[in-house]
Amino acid sequence: MAKFQRHLFLCIHDRGPDHPKGCCARKGSLEVAEALKRGAYERGLKRVVRVNKAGCLDQCARGVTCVVYPEAVWYGGVTLADVDEIIERHLVGGEPVERLVIPDHLLTGKPVDPV
Amino acid sequence: MAKFQRHLFLCIHDRGPDHPKGCCARKGSLEVAEALKRGAYERGLKRVVRVNKAGCLDQCARGVTCVVYPEAVWYGGVTLADVDEIIERHLVGGEPVERLVIPDHLLTGKPVDPV
Repeated sequence: MAKFQRHLFLCIHDRGPDHPKGCCARKGSLEVAEALKRGAYERGLKRVVRVNKAGCLDQCARGVTCVVYPEAVWYGGVTLADVDEIIERHLVGGEPVERLVIPDHLLTGKPVDPV
Repeated sequence: MAKFQRHLFLCIHDRGPDHPKGCCARKGSLEVAEALKRGAYERGLKRVVRVNKAGCLDQCARGVTCVVYPEAVWYGGVTLADVDEIIERHLVGGEPVERLVIPDHLLTGKPVDPV
């Protein structure tokens, strides 16, 4: 066998209803995760692409968020209406869905110090 | 800001005590996940490396399993005793811990058809 060609992780972290940062779970991430899993399966991507639920991806305010590796493309504000496009365009076609991409400068990773 | 330099996902899926495939949760994955998170934080890797819990990574028999992206290195049989080495050698140093790596041919991804 081999590695998955693409591996999508979708945040299902739940901060409760009143947290100031918000959270993916309260924006419907569980339903989006299930739709992505089902859609990928129906598209014949079993063991080609894997869709996993994950803990907090540290993008709470931009939820529902997910990241696709190995290309490290981050998506924010994902809804059920975006699922088919993410599957067809990105998971199958390899082309990110630009309108949903979180730009690098809005992510929370720490830049590498210049050498 | 920027992307995380490395992103580790560790399976915490629980199939219950009697499942024939076994599962990561019953082999202590929650404790390993917490130790990795704590260790990465103490090593000053906050927002440089992210450690996340994830659903089933489809490597049940080889648990505790995790995968590190963007390099897509898969580890199996991970225990608390391996945590420091994974952090220091791989998450900091960028060098996989070879003795824990699951070889590609034992992974469950579907090989790409030759063109």
